[in-house]
Amino acid sequence: MAQIDLSLIIPIATLAGLGFAGLLARDVLRRETGSDQMREIAAAIQQGARAFLRRQYKSIALIATALAILFAVALGWQKGYVLGLKTAGAFTLGATLSALSGYLGMQIAIRSNIRSAAGSLRSFNDALVIALRGGAVSGLSIVGLSLAGVSILYYGYGFGSAATETAQMDLILSIVGFGFGASLVALFAQLGGGIYTKAADVGADLVGKIEAGIPEDDPRNPAVVADLVGDNVGDCAGRGADLFESTAAENIGAMVLGVVLFSYFGIAGVIFPLVARAFGLLASIVGVFVVRAREEESPMGALNRGYLVATALAAVLFGFASWAMLQPTAPTSSGGLTWIYYWVCGLTGMGTALVYVWVTQYYTEARYRPVRDIAKASETGPATNIISGFAVGLEATAIPAVVVSIAILFSYWLGETTGIPRGGVYGTAIATMGMLATAAYILAMDTFGPIVDNGAGIIEMAGMSEAARKNMDKLDAAGNTTKALTKGYAVGSAALAAFLLFNAFLTEAQVKAVDLAHPETFVGGFLGGALVFLFTAYAIRAVGRAAWSIIKDVRDQFRENPGIMAGTVKPDYGRTVDICTRSALHEMVVPGILAVATPVAVGLIFRFVKITYVLNQVTLRMEPIPAGEPLGATLMVGTIAGVLMALVLNTGGGAWDNAKKFIEAGNLGGKGSPTHKAAVVGDTVGDPFKDTAGPSLHILVKLLSTITLVIAPLLV
Amino acid sequence: MAQIDLSLIIPIATLAGLGFAGLLARDVLRRETGSDQMREIAAAIQQGARAFLRRQYKSIALIATALAILFAVALGWQKGYVLGLKTAGAFTLGATLSALSGYLGMQIAIRSNIRSAAGSLRSFNDALVIALRGGAVSGLSIVGLSLAGVSILYYGYGFGSAATETAQMDLILSIVGFGFGASLVALFAQLGGGIYTKAADVGADLVGKIEAGIPEDDPRNPAVVADLVGDNVGDCAGRGADLFESTAAENIGAMVLGVVLFSYFGIAGVIFPLVARAFGLLASIVGVFVVRAREEESPMGALNRGYLVATALAAVLFGFASWAMLQPTAPTSSGGLTWIYYWVCGLTGMGTALVYVWVTQYYTEARYRPVRDIAKASETGPATNIISGFAVGLEATAIPAVVVSIAILFSYWLGETTGIPRGGVYGTAIATMGMLATAAYILAMDTFGPIVDNGAGIIEMAGMSEAARKNMDKLDAAGNTTKALTKGYAVGSAALAAFLLFNAFLTEAQVKAVDLAHPETFVGGFLGGALVFLFTAYAIRAVGRAAWSIIKDVRDQFRENPGIMAGTVKPDYGRTVDICTRSALHEMVVPGILAVATPVAVGLIFRFVKITYVLNQVTLRMEPIPAGEPLGATLMVGTIAGVLMALVLNTGGGAWDNAKKFIEAGNLGGKGSPTHKAAVVGDTVGDPFKDTAGPSLHILVKLLSTITLVIAPLLV
Repeated sequence: MAQIDLSLIIPIATLAGLGFAGLLARDVLRRETGSDQMREIAAAIQQGARAFLRRQYKSIALIATALAILFAVALGWQKGYVLGLKTAGAFTLGATLSALSGYLGMQIAIRSNIRSAAGSLRSFNDALVIALRGGAVSGLSIVGLSLAGVSILYYGYGFGSAATETAQMDLILSIVGFGFGASLVALFAQLGGGIYTKAADVGADLVGKIEAGIPEDDPRNPAVVADLVGDNVGDCAGRGADLFESTAAENIGAMVLGVVLFSYFGIAGVIFPLVARAFGLLASIVGVFVVRAREEESPMGALNRGYLVATALAAVLFGFASWAMLQPTAPTSSGGLTWIYYWVCGLTGMGTALVYVWVTQYYTEARYRPVRDIAKASETGPATNIISGFAVGLEATAIPAVVVSIAILFSYWLGETTGIPRGGVYGTAIATMGMLATAAYILAMDTFGPIVDNGAGIIEMAGMSEAARKNMDKLDAAGNTTKALTKGYAVGSAALAAFLLFNAFLTEAQVKAVDLAHPETFVGGFLGGALVFLFTAYAIRAVGRAAWSIIKDVRDQFRENPGIMAGTVKPDYGRTVDICTRSALHEMVVPGILAVATPVAVGLIFRFVKITYVLNQVTLRMEPIPAGEPLGATLMVGTIAGVLMALVLNTGGGAWDNAKKFIEAGNLGGKGSPTHKAAVVGDTVGDPFKDTAGPSLHILVKLLSTITLVIAPLLV
Repeated sequence: MAQIDLSLIIPIATLAGLGFAGLLARDVLRRETGSDQMREIAAAIQQGARAFLRRQYKSIALIATALAILFAVALGWQKGYVLGLKTAGAFTLGATLSALSGYLGMQIAIRSNIRSAAGSLRSFNDALVIALRGGAVSGLSIVGLSLAGVSILYYGYGFGSAATETAQMDLILSIVGFGFGASLVALFAQLGGGIYTKAADVGADLVGKIEAGIPEDDPRNPAVVADLVGDNVGDCAGRGADLFESTAAENIGAMVLGVVLFSYFGIAGVIFPLVARAFGLLASIVGVFVVRAREEESPMGALNRGYLVATALAAVLFGFASWAMLQPTAPTSSGGLTWIYYWVCGLTGMGTALVYVWVTQYYTEARYRPVRDIAKASETGPATNIISGFAVGLEATAIPAVVVSIAILFSYWLGETTGIPRGGVYGTAIATMGMLATAAYILAMDTFGPIVDNGAGIIEMAGMSEAARKNMDKLDAAGNTTKALTKGYAVGSAALAAFLLFNAFLTEAQVKAVDLAHPETFVGGFLGGALVFLFTAYAIRAVGRAAWSIIKDVRDQFRENPGIMAGTVKPDYGRTVDICTRSALHEMVVPGILAVATPVAVGLIFRFVKITYVLNQVTLRMEPIPAGEPLGATLMVGTIAGVLMALVLNTGGGAWDNAKKFIEAGNLGGKGSPTHKAAVVGDTVGDPFKDTAGPSLHILVKLLSTITLVIAPLLV
């Protein structure tokens, strides 16, 4: 059968995604905004969130501009100015679109929160639908922009000039900067936002709940608005940038590997990743529109229904795309059935996503053993609570590691069985596409989390009715679950994508093997592992430092103005927001620079070492190893360590959180008991784990991939 | 210059080590044992420790016998019964000698404790010298037995039959079982002992200090004897088995690499590791004998003096041995200066040991920033204390990783510069020998720790004079430092040895490259990393479970017999010891089996996968990868992750401990303040980190090396 050109679906899906995002935004913005008091609180949140984002983007723009110039000059000097300029252009577009999608997602989230809260005054379904649609604006526009960016560069840079394999490879190499730009912005967005959100949370809790003895979300606490702002800048903007980056990097990496199979699939193999993403986006749109909850239903039931619809539809569309495009033009042993092998690779990826979601639920929901164990351990105090939670986090790495291993081996084996040389790696690439197919829907569920969290806070602070509070609390609990699921999904896709991006790097850097038996390579791997540990240290510590500045400010406000605690004077929310903004942005710089500098340093040092081998006539080393080889090990071992550490931090943090909630629900002594106090310690420790360091590690892993792709030409 | 045969030094040093150990033991045992009350307490500790060791060795013997038969049958079936029987014999000897050295070290430690305590009634110097000599019995006999075991096998198996390179290689391959036997016993000894010691410690603290409000080491606490027993079975027997294993595995691995250079050094290159160890043992004996403290001196000053003397002497003897033996018999570019290159490799290893000791001190002593930071963070409660301590542990991985990387690259580069093919790997082997040269002295310092800890406990429980108490407390503080240093040293040597053992494995398994670009290899690496995380989870959780059984028993005893708290009736110490013994041994099984089964499973699965490649005619994979390759990645990535995780756990745990002690010394509110209470939480969390999971991870790393060496012939 001949190939069918489906490339038209790329602009269609992009426009559909962005168009529906616009429609949903209009629908959400038209909704009621509740009482004046609610509006006042929401306005304070909006103001804080915007101020943070403005300043954060200013810092990121500075760093990004410096890096763009640096890479343009380095690449231009070594490989000619065309590649230098094109890379800088792609980098700038990636960084800009990533920032834009974070901005858009947050703008709508900080407007949806109050509208979802107002909806809860009427009915549960209204609150749910508004929150999910608000989240969907974010999900659809982020995936739409990612697809648009990669396609514009691919078609723009390559217009009428890329009919051969070499030309295609040069073309893709010139757009890898897009992925790097995206991951750079993602890293800083997640780090800064993650530090902000948890510093505000920890600070508000420590000084409010523990020192002053006032409940969560009490309007007398000056840090309460900063806490609500944090949910938006950390969870919405952070995770949005994270998945923007995932989809972009995965697309580009898969296209590199598609070029390798040029003699079998031609250009169809190169643009297949874009088409697959386009179909996934369409499936996600449908998924968002089928969600509707019955009054008495658990919100997770409704959300899961949408997810399953999106996944099922994506599976069918994926099969259609494979059938239409993955028809080999040269003879292979699998012949006309080749597309089936690759389709099954895609299904493997979708299955991996489901398993990750399930495993995350098992380890973080109070229905199952792990969270119960932590709650039980809290009976003997905070120390045993911490030990137990940390053990749960560590344990939670095992199944995901085995599942990703099976997915990689199985899809590789399927790809090899097609009989196409290097078809195995393309199989793992397609599995990754499958895993990320429903990214837009997952992202909608994720952004749903901070929207309802904020909504619940607004209802609480404005002192609204018991029924509304109950509606929002139910949604808030579901939001915690969706946030945990997305993190599991993000780690899983990072792990799966790593192998494909690694292979793209090897292709580009012309490295044949990454052999750990070479001392330079072993050392490269060792340093990659250590980078993950050191980065985690900085990310966690940053939260402690920033939280400290908030605690100080709240204490000062209470002391300066006793009317605050009496409830007669309103605290200065803005001042706390401001202090939190400044310290979060200050703290994100060192770990961010560390993440960017380490792979560059490893790459360049071993390039230099290689030169000394050649100069030093005494050594009998037969062939100096390629300069890219140690860097490859940094990338791979760093990825393995990063994925495992992220699983520990995300899962441990989520499990501590829910162990506390389990006790608060009246178990083991309930709220206020010593057991509960011990569980609060674990929850507080888990905050920077699960919302700062863990999610930043996903991005670190992907940044390692994209930065090595960008500097690969310098190592050849 | 011609080579000089120094092999005679091997039996001389062995006999000297064992002889001096005997003399020191006689000297220590002759000393006074203090008051009747002290003798009574010491007898209870001895009884508990012996009972634990007896039962533990029974369990280990069962597992070891089963494994010996299994490996003998598997190897015999695949490679002929001679190799099978020889391996089983070597395995049995390794396991037996490891158990014996743990037994001897503990026997003398549980007799030195009371004698050191009695010495403190007279003078500070007496207490110090008795404790160090008691420790030295352990150090000298362990290293002596390790050297004896490897040499007996080497000369016994090879008697008159190993004049060629092939014969030498076969010979060494038949003795690798010795290292595996040693690491198997070490793993269970450290796991079981580590779980016991921390379960008793945590249990005694939680129920004694926190629930009943009685001080540490109060005789009314039924768990207090179990706690003192724990110091012996965890720290003495555990670390003894650990370093027995290190020295044995390093010797055998280096001998494998020595055979590779057979055409340059002949047999001298093969036995050089044994000679180097022999000289190191002699240097350590001298180091032990120069230690003598002035009444007012800090004990660390005296111990460090001994360490520096031992190191300096070892450096000189190492140079002599290199000069005498590493004279190439075939032309090389470095000619007669070859020995200098390798000597510098050895000095690099010694320098690495010094840096590790320094870094450990920086991160775990209250004089420096990290511990102060943790103490400061305790002011805002247990959560910030935990976050800060965890960040310190994570941060503490960076310098050690860089230092080991430099040591590996530098010694490899020196070895290559000799012009001998594969001389680089031999350089890293010699660096490891340098690092382990003073192992006997380090071990003496380490065993010193539990002896003075016990001594201080005996003085406290027997209510002796204030002066004696002050003497023992000073020694106890020094003991904490030496325990931390030894752990740093043990991790560092594990990291350095890993690269050499890995290369020995590649040589044996006939694997040319461990290429992470192969999906099987990447997956092997991923699973190696996950093994480390899962193993840590089990080890940490085991402590929690075992501690729980102790807490229950102590509560029961208090309830059943109110006279205990009143001080009129003595608690039933033996019952608590017994319960602790049973649960520790029960809990060590799963992580132990996991550690052994994972590498075997990875090795065998990919051997099977390889067969399916050959059968499956559809695939176009040109050459199936060697079955040993994925296992090589499991080993290497597991090692990197294990070393990093061990650093986190050991350093974090030590830093928490000392932050608490810093506050207890009267800083930041002092004992009993809320800050102190928060710091106690960190200390309790750190206990299973630094004394169970961390030290067990060193052994896991080395077990991975030795088990892969043993199963390597099955993968060819």
